[in-house]
Amino acid sequence: MNWRLLLQGSVKFACMESSSNIGVLVGVPMDYTSTYKPGSRFAPDYIRNASCNIEFYSLSTGRIMESEGFIDLGNIILPPGDVGKSLSIIQSVAEGAWREYQGIPLGFLGGEHLITYPIVSGLIDGIDTLVVFDAHLDLRDEYLGSRLNHASFLRRLVEKGVRVIHIGSRAYSGEELEYLKTLENIKVYSVLDVLEKTVEAAELGRVYISIDMDVIDPSYAPGVGNPEPFGLTPLQLLGLLKKIVGSSSRLVGFDIVEVNPLVDVNDVTSILAGKLVFELAALARGGR
Amino acid sequence: MNWRLLLQGSVKFACMESSSNIGVLVGVPMDYTSTYKPGSRFAPDYIRNASCNIEFYSLSTGRIMESEGFIDLGNIILPPGDVGKSLSIIQSVAEGAWREYQGIPLGFLGGEHLITYPIVSGLIDGIDTLVVFDAHLDLRDEYLGSRLNHASFLRRLVEKGVRVIHIGSRAYSGEELEYLKTLENIKVYSVLDVLEKTVEAAELGRVYISIDMDVIDPSYAPGVGNPEPFGLTPLQLLGLLKKIVGSSSRLVGFDIVEVNPLVDVNDVTSILAGKLVFELAALARGGR
Amino acid sequence: MNWRLLLQGSVKFACMESSSNIGVLVGVPMDYTSTYKPGSRFAPDYIRNASCNIEFYSLSTGRIMESEGFIDLGNIILPPGDVGKSLSIIQSVAEGAWREYQGIPLGFLGGEHLITYPIVSGLIDGIDTLVVFDAHLDLRDEYLGSRLNHASFLRRLVEKGVRVIHIGSRAYSGEELEYLKTLENIKVYSVLDVLEKTVEAAELGRVYISIDMDVIDPSYAPGVGNPEPFGLTPLQLLGLLKKIVGSSSRLVGFDIVEVNPLVDVNDVTSILAGKLVFELAALARGGR
Amino acid sequence: MNWRLLLQGSVKFACMESSSNIGVLVGVPMDYTSTYKPGSRFAPDYIRNASCNIEFYSLSTGRIMESEGFIDLGNIILPPGDVGKSLSIIQSVAEGAWREYQGIPLGFLGGEHLITYPIVSGLIDGIDTLVVFDAHLDLRDEYLGSRLNHASFLRRLVEKGVRVIHIGSRAYSGEELEYLKTLENIKVYSVLDVLEKTVEAAELGRVYISIDMDVIDPSYAPGVGNPEPFGLTPLQLLGLLKKIVGSSSRLVGFDIVEVNPLVDVNDVTSILAGKLVFELAALARGGR
Amino acid sequence: MNWRLLLQGSVKFACMESSSNIGVLVGVPMDYTSTYKPGSRFAPDYIRNASCNIEFYSLSTGRIMESEGFIDLGNIILPPGDVGKSLSIIQSVAEGAWREYQGIPLGFLGGEHLITYPIVSGLIDGIDTLVVFDAHLDLRDEYLGSRLNHASFLRRLVEKGVRVIHIGSRAYSGEELEYLKTLENIKVYSVLDVLEKTVEAAELGRVYISIDMDVIDPSYAPGVGNPEPFGLTPLQLLGLLKKIVGSSSRLVGFDIVEVNPLVDVNDVTSILAGKLVFELAALARGGR
Amino acid sequence: MNWRLLLQGSVKFACMESSSNIGVLVGVPMDYTSTYKPGSRFAPDYIRNASCNIEFYSLSTGRIMESEGFIDLGNIILPPGDVGKSLSIIQSVAEGAWREYQGIPLGFLGGEHLITYPIVSGLIDGIDTLVVFDAHLDLRDEYLGSRLNHASFLRRLVEKGVRVIHIGSRAYSGEELEYLKTLENIKVYSVLDVLEKTVEAAELGRVYISIDMDVIDPSYAPGVGNPEPFGLTPLQLLGLLKKIVGSSSRLVGFDIVEVNPLVDVNDVTSILAGKLVFELAALARGGR
Ligand SMILES: [Mn+2]
Ligand SMILES: [Mn+2]
Ligand SMILES: [Mn+2]
Ligand SMILES: [Mn+2]
Ligand SMILES: [Mn+2]
Ligand SMILES: [Mn+2]
Ligand SMILES: [Mn+2]
Ligand SMILES: [Mn+2]
Ligand SMILES: [Mn+2]
Ligand SMILES: [Mn+2]
Ligand SMILES: [Mn+2]
Ligand SMILES: [Mn+2]
Repeated sequence: MNWRLLLQGSVKFACMESSSNIGVLVGVPMDYTSTYKPGSRFAPDYIRNASCNIEFYSLSTGRIMESEGFIDLGNIILPPGDVGKSLSIIQSVAEGAWREYQGIPLGFLGGEHLITYPIVSGLIDGIDTLVVFDAHLDLRDEYLGSRLNHASFLRRLVEKGVRVIHIGSRAYSGEELEYLKTLENIKVYSVLDVLEKTVEAAELGRVYISIDMDVIDPSYAPGVGNPEPFGLTPLQLLGLLKKIVGSSSRLVGFDIVEVNPLVDVNDVTSILAGKLVFELAALARGGR
Repeated sequence: MNWRLLLQGSVKFACMESSSNIGVLVGVPMDYTSTYKPGSRFAPDYIRNASCNIEFYSLSTGRIMESEGFIDLGNIILPPGDVGKSLSIIQSVAEGAWREYQGIPLGFLGGEHLITYPIVSGLIDGIDTLVVFDAHLDLRDEYLGSRLNHASFLRRLVEKGVRVIHIGSRAYSGEELEYLKTLENIKVYSVLDVLEKTVEAAELGRVYISIDMDVIDPSYAPGVGNPEPFGLTPLQLLGLLKKIVGSSSRLVGFDIVEVNPLVDVNDVTSILAGKLVFELAALARGGR
Repeated sequence: MNWRLLLQGSVKFACMESSSNIGVLVGVPMDYTSTYKPGSRFAPDYIRNASCNIEFYSLSTGRIMESEGFIDLGNIILPPGDVGKSLSIIQSVAEGAWREYQGIPLGFLGGEHLITYPIVSGLIDGIDTLVVFDAHLDLRDEYLGSRLNHASFLRRLVEKGVRVIHIGSRAYSGEELEYLKTLENIKVYSVLDVLEKTVEAAELGRVYISIDMDVIDPSYAPGVGNPEPFGLTPLQLLGLLKKIVGSSSRLVGFDIVEVNPLVDVNDVTSILAGKLVFELAALARGGR
Repeated sequence: MNWRLLLQGSVKFACMESSSNIGVLVGVPMDYTSTYKPGSRFAPDYIRNASCNIEFYSLSTGRIMESEGFIDLGNIILPPGDVGKSLSIIQSVAEGAWREYQGIPLGFLGGEHLITYPIVSGLIDGIDTLVVFDAHLDLRDEYLGSRLNHASFLRRLVEKGVRVIHIGSRAYSGEELEYLKTLENIKVYSVLDVLEKTVEAAELGRVYISIDMDVIDPSYAPGVGNPEPFGLTPLQLLGLLKKIVGSSSRLVGFDIVEVNPLVDVNDVTSILAGKLVFELAALARGGR
Repeated sequence: MNWRLLLQGSVKFACMESSSNIGVLVGVPMDYTSTYKPGSRFAPDYIRNASCNIEFYSLSTGRIMESEGFIDLGNIILPPGDVGKSLSIIQSVAEGAWREYQGIPLGFLGGEHLITYPIVSGLIDGIDTLVVFDAHLDLRDEYLGSRLNHASFLRRLVEKGVRVIHIGSRAYSGEELEYLKTLENIKVYSVLDVLEKTVEAAELGRVYISIDMDVIDPSYAPGVGNPEPFGLTPLQLLGLLKKIVGSSSRLVGFDIVEVNPLVDVNDVTSILAGKLVFELAALARGGR
Repeated sequence: MNWRLLLQGSVKFACMESSSNIGVLVGVPMDYTSTYKPGSRFAPDYIRNASCNIEFYSLSTGRIMESEGFIDLGNIILPPGDVGKSLSIIQSVAEGAWREYQGIPLGFLGGEHLITYPIVSGLIDGIDTLVVFDAHLDLRDEYLGSRLNHASFLRRLVEKGVRVIHIGSRAYSGEELEYLKTLENIKVYSVLDVLEKTVEAAELGRVYISIDMDVIDPSYAPGVGNPEPFGLTPLQLLGLLKKIVGSSSRLVGFDIVEVNPLVDVNDVTSILAGKLVFELAALARGGR
């Protein structure tokens, strides 16, 4: 089946038609494995709407992007409640978009964090380092009887041999900490590490960045599935993104997940997510 | 596996311990196949909390129920996002509770309407007539690529030969109306029929009642997944319930589904659902 | 102490200065004995604000009231959490206003239903019949260890010998129903009675009307402390008010209680309460 | 200037592309003259989104409309806060659409009620009767120093000689009632008239229907700019619409105004508005 | 026309009557040119109400202000939707208050940022430096066909020759950056400049301060029309205000704009705005 | 009366049964003396629910606590609106729990700050230092005619000779500052002191910690009764708690008060409160 048939139209990101293309966007409205408040299925369109009311300007690069734009492919059509089929469809779309838009960063708007599993699986040959920003490790083996969910997705990717840098964590299960000790291919910077140490980001190669918005403190990003206190500030995140993209040979793609617009205040979490899309595209382009 | 292990504790319905037992209650916090706003997973506990702030009185029977009570078994533990396994667990619990509590009405607090499928499947030998109250027929063959979801559950039960009386409908797809013409074992009273005709309820035998709260007008029950205008009033529903229970040989069980507390106002939909539990138990007991 | 010193200014009802005076208004922002969601303390000012955005027109009489107005005395100043002292202050203000504004209906904006106890106690010599609209009887002897609260206020008044007509009830405790059997001086019309029988209202003499807004169905008045399904419609209430005022020798005063603006939707309950103030004043004036 | 350049794209009504066309839709996101809570500017898109989650079925006609569709032209682009220029643009679009889509009903999604003024002005030669549903008369001469606003729009049209049937009113200023006595070309049915009398609808000719959603009771339509108690039920409105379209030679167009999604509950007012669009299109087509 | 007739009463700021006067306050409830969520018209009264629940204490000066007070003139009466007439009225009131209350700081509570245009125009002879705090430059030439709106107000003032210090910006259009290069009389400190450089504030002379609350990070001030991430903290703003007032010969006046209470959480943005009024008055008075 | 009879069950903290016990928890749902928005009565259960969705991990100690647990005694049953009786009951429970659970920290979940008065009164012989975190001093002599309320509780304790360290204040009445000058047994660190000085914490002995959640900035803890800008960050509070517990001979007990879940956003304030319970228990246990 043609991967484009798996998509449906929607308001375009930033309400703009693309000319000079700086990124390809796909919405992934999946939230079936959420264990607390569902609602991240609505995030892609809230982020798009929010992006229509902000300036085309990137703070991290100083770049004005009014003459540039995104190819927004719309949202993936998913069978409600069918996780297996959904993951397969997401992977097909990720692979299709990757083949078609060579050299342009692919941005995915979640949805829950589980979507990173099929996306990275689909792009796996093009990625040297997966950088994850998250308050949680998502390294459980299984959760409530399921091996494929938002709390175990990274374990599934680690098992596939993906090299990971994980930044911003501050909530762990004992099982995850035990498992972590057995791993060599993952580097974890807790939120305390970010405050106290330098995040080493050398020779990352081709990078894919996954941002679970709960890495940011709930004061800045209240509208997430599992708000976790003691988080990063947006400026700290921006500095780290700049460093990582700057240390990479290329930004292959990124996702922004776990925004839940139904529990947000004045759409500030969607606005911040939309802003990060602009910033990541500008950083990938280079600047300042 | 012992079916009791599939349950977890919770606040008790009406905040009371049972003595003279007039009903067994089970919460079924499943909402993965919701196609619009999810959140009915929270309904069982909201309904329980609401029931703690209302009088133990039934308007339809005039019965004071302070000296009677429910056995509240808590909520079924479900694997998030795994529909197949969830349905199997729900059916196990329904069967287990049915065997154990012979002669006492079983009440299920949804969750989405799909839960009626495994419940009725589990109790099928004990049911002569399934009475469904719903704004929708839920008779689609499949929906967004899935055959087991809230919009097709009744078709799956009709295919099993269950005899159905359906009351309150007012929104149809063409497919459903075509399918309906081929069926003999179902009687449909639209909301207009309820206003204009008499609902015939004779020789119902052992009855199971499934109430999709969207059968009630959104003015009275705004907190549902798919509010549909032009619905029944609570007093109309109460009159119909009284007639149906009165025409049955026995009320085997009932469910109240599709309450979504996250989009409600002042918990009025949860309160009304809690009230219906009292009324159904009182009606089953006989009265006035 | 001068009773006027117990009051503080506020936005005026209907945002108007009075000329021809058709009513005296007092806000009573007390909600300490609420057992569920507190917030009725904010009702007086929400009702006043709502009244500024509606026409000076009464549907029940057809009277335009633009050239008439209310004397709005503001809100009573109450010591937070001190029920005894608060009731004493409320009674002082009620007595003071009654002496000063002879012949003009006194309207009190609650606040919880307990405020009716000191008000009616203060005006007791001037009242022949107390007409209460309420989903509940409020006839408990005590509640959670307290004899003076919103659930027992009417018992305290009945014990003082006040003659009562109670309309709209639909939720009872066993204790209340037992107590009711022992009483002669109270006539109770349940919500079913209102639908099926005629409310007899003859020789009421001087009437005080207390409206617990939960007498109205929660679809019309969701913003109340204890929403109770199966209630009156606003038009039914309006018809009953017209009948009662018409059957009285005089409307001495009225209160509107239990509005909780913090759990309302789009202020519809405050607007309806404000509308009732207009209607009661117009009915007292006579009309159509 | 080409009138199509005054429009911008948006989610399509009912999320469908038209084939057999039964109506042309235009969003008019104007709310600058609102005197209470603004927000009706967001209504066109909320109504469209709501319409994507309801069945393509009309209760008043029994018509399934899945094979039919609307031409949705998107929203008119308006200069924020510039009333004069905005009215001129709206009239241009109304005239342009009317010339281009001869014989197809034009539906306008407001926005505030003032938009009816430029729309009807633009279509005036094609309209024999303007039928207005509204809790208010909107017949003030001026309001807070302005002659063109939501509270005076109908006076401006009456001054142009438009023949009007007005249904559902229940809140009047003295000025409006005085003015009404001087008019011959308007027939007013108050909400009490609707309950007690027959609405005479003969020889209406070509009809334009304007529905201020506050004509409906706030229990069913809480999300409006000025909720007014004692309103119509949706079924009463549906019956009246059926009668009026049935008595007309043709439904030229209609608007649905004053929905304010920012103060709604669970989008029920937007859903009801979307439903009315389906019903009006089905009625215009004839049915049952 | 007497400028005082253009005002209407309201709850007084801090619920206090003034004795020793430290500021004159005027509410300006205008939000017609808002391009996203309107609602700042409600800010003056929300800020006043919030100010009644906070201590009369200024953190920046250590000053207790219980024995001091404000003259609160109430809100300006504006014709809804008529921008031109509204600006003229605002300027009249600003001029009138300035003439009457010589030597006392004038504080204006918006409303949208456009109100700064008529205010500063009215006071222009008494101002040497306009200090603007804003996430945005508001230097567009026109916006959606209008030259007088919240996004262009500062350009209109710059064109009049006003000397400007602009602090806290972080979102620019290309047009604004181009225009900025042509200007000499404006000094811009972006939010990054505030973090990295010293804001030079020497020889400011008589200063007017305009605070668009979106200069503060949305985590602290979520209730604004256009939340913009990466903003100032309240303590950073307080430090800058102290520096600027300390470097001025006098604080002529100030405004606080773009608070939108309808999208706030627990009124924290209104509370912070009220706090800033206290702080500015205390700073003008001198302290610590 | 047996103090255990004064308690009622509830969801257990962290949804866990205790094994190795690290703390005893009691809910104190009292909010009758709230002068602004009531609702802290609901905090104990919101905090418990929030605690069920966070990891059993303490950031300040690095301790995993999955194998440890709390004894959660449920909520104290209080007579609504009866302050005197309520305080007496709370003190009884505090004394009873203290006698029974020697050596285990007692944690109290408020409710309003007044609850600290009976708790500390009950434990007074076991406490050497009371450490209070609060934006306010709560040292008024009386407030609105009452001597026992949330704004005067600390004065009542100081009068009993309790030694106090007060941290985080930033809003004072003149009366409080005057009174403070007369005291020797209290050390006050304002929020500015925390930023600029070292908090001296030596020889504290047996410590009781009372945390009014408004000590934290409203951006992190919006859901409180009286949000006060310019507050501590959660990380600053965590550092101070670590220092204080580390400087004590023992943590006797603690309370977390003034959370108001009814005005929170996405339960972030309840989550943070729940997190602090974990952190305090882990700190009491020692760690890192
Ligand atoms: Mn994650
Ligand atoms: Mn996470
Ligand atoms: Mn259904
Ligand atoms: Mn349904
Ligand atoms: Mn009552
Ligand atoms: Mn009641
Ligand atoms: Mn209108
Ligand atoms: Mn209207
Ligand atoms: Mn601005
Ligand atoms: Mn701005
Ligand atoms: Mn305190
Ligand atoms: Mn405090």
